[in-house]
Amino acid sequence: MDKYVVKPGQKFKISSIKPDDTGKFSAETRAECEAKTADLKEKMAKLQNLLFASRNHALLVVIQAMDGSGKDSLVGNVFDSLNPNGVQVTYYKAPNSLELSHDYLWRIHNACPPKGIVGIFNRSHYEDVLITRVHGWVDDKTAEKRFAQIRNFEQMLVENGTTIVKLHLRISLEEQAIQLQERIDDPTKRWKFNPGDLVERKSWDDYMRVYQEAIAATSIDEAPWHVIPGDKRWYRNYVIASIIVDALEAMKLEYPAGDKTVDFANLKVV
Amino acid sequence: MDKYVVKPGQKFKISSIKPDDTGKFSAETRAECEAKTADLKEKMAKLQNLLFASRNHALLVVIQAMDGSGKDSLVGNVFDSLNPNGVQVTYYKAPNSLELSHDYLWRIHNACPPKGIVGIFNRSHYEDVLITRVHGWVDDKTAEKRFAQIRNFEQMLVENGTTIVKLHLRISLEEQAIQLQERIDDPTKRWKFNPGDLVERKSWDDYMRVYQEAIAATSIDEAPWHVIPGDKRWYRNYVIASIIVDALEAMKLEYPAGDKTVDFANLKVV
Repeated sequence: MDKYVVKPGQKFKISSIKPDDTGKFSAETRAECEAKTADLKEKMAKLQNLLFASRNHALLVVIQAMDGSGKDSLVGNVFDSLNPNGVQVTYYKAPNSLELSHDYLWRIHNACPPKGIVGIFNRSHYEDVLITRVHGWVDDKTAEKRFAQIRNFEQMLVENGTTIVKLHLRISLEEQAIQLQERIDDPTKRWKFNPGDLVERKSWDDYMRVYQEAIAATSIDEAPWHVIPGDKRWYRNYVIASIIVDALEAMKLEYPAGDKTVDFANLKVV
Repeated sequence: MDKYVVKPGQKFKISSIKPDDTGKFSAETRAECEAKTADLKEKMAKLQNLLFASRNHALLVVIQAMDGSGKDSLVGNVFDSLNPNGVQVTYYKAPNSLELSHDYLWRIHNACPPKGIVGIFNRSHYEDVLITRVHGWVDDKTAEKRFAQIRNFEQMLVENGTTIVKLHLRISLEEQAIQLQERIDDPTKRWKFNPGDLVERKSWDDYMRVYQEAIAATSIDEAPWHVIPGDKRWYRNYVIASIIVDALEAMKLEYPAGDKTVDFANLKVV
């Protein structure tokens, strides 16, 4: 999955990732891809149990993408194989008044997963260098400072035992139209439709520019970005399940030996 | 599932629930029971989506039981059908120093699910009228006061939109021995084994007495207790999936109509 990693320190063009890319798969081999995803999800569940048991690492998955890119469906269709005991999903909406009275990383830090836990951020601190820039709420100088603050913050997390997987789901303008139209036409999805999404959509090119800049500026060795083709959700799910399995395997987790004072070989419960 | 509900205001004997009860099922019809559980879990997932969409109720599931009763396996095998976007599991361990500097319901209230969300308490505020009583850390008079405080607290939650499902998984002393022995013998489970569990096990009868008292005193119309046979996990899972489906159906959830300013019939995304 290396081709979707944004290499730190190298020039990055967001257009280099095609939203409808399906790698070595095609519509004809979709079922094969989905079978692989199912296997990867089982693997993820086993590795999560190890993570939970050993409690010396945390995994933080940051999902950042445009409206209609399927962030919720990703959580429901890839991370649903995990035991809910060890998963914490945080949904970021516009900050409330308490959150606004703190620095923008305060609510983020507060929701970071403890050791043993998989934390999933549905949106994230990156909103503070994305929508805020498109609307001119922060200037370029502030954005540059924030990029540095975010790099330092994430580096600190990694150095203290958290693996960070940052995922940008890259969809096309056409795919967004299909998804938003579905929210309008399907009565069971109308609750998800926000007329504001149509306004944001008009700034698509601006969004792509600030995404490109933010991703390039914050892809660090300790926590690189993955930009993943998102138009074909079946392929996207496969890529992400692979990335998560790789991240968990890299932790080289093992079941702890258990309490040292216990003679496990001879102890009988009476 | 009415037979497992502890009727408020009526005499309750914990021994009236047989830990190895399997209702109308038996070892021979276990597969049939498991198929029903799978159907119920699918139903749960659909209802959870409605809960999430409508955001006018919360569901709080309180799981309280002895060591080795399979609380974790319950979360992993029944609640795993839910979309992690809308689930919050809270694990209660011995309170830390900050929590101890507050009243015992402070950390509980803080973790209650917001509207739209399913909150699961793996252990709960009931520890403060269970282990604390067995060890004599609180006297009977304090326990009585706490029963009233808990009734009032839960009633307040219910009156403000939270449905509370309280589950006591009732296992036998023999089943606990099997489960604890497995944690000793299976190297992949030794991390779960706490030698202190063998000490608590010696107070089994005391635990049953304080469970009986706490359950009888806090089973209220707004939030009755369910005492569920726990020795056969396949049956337990079925009973609990049924209870959760009933609780969600009782909310009479519907998909919201969506933003009133939007002309859904004619809007086309361009």
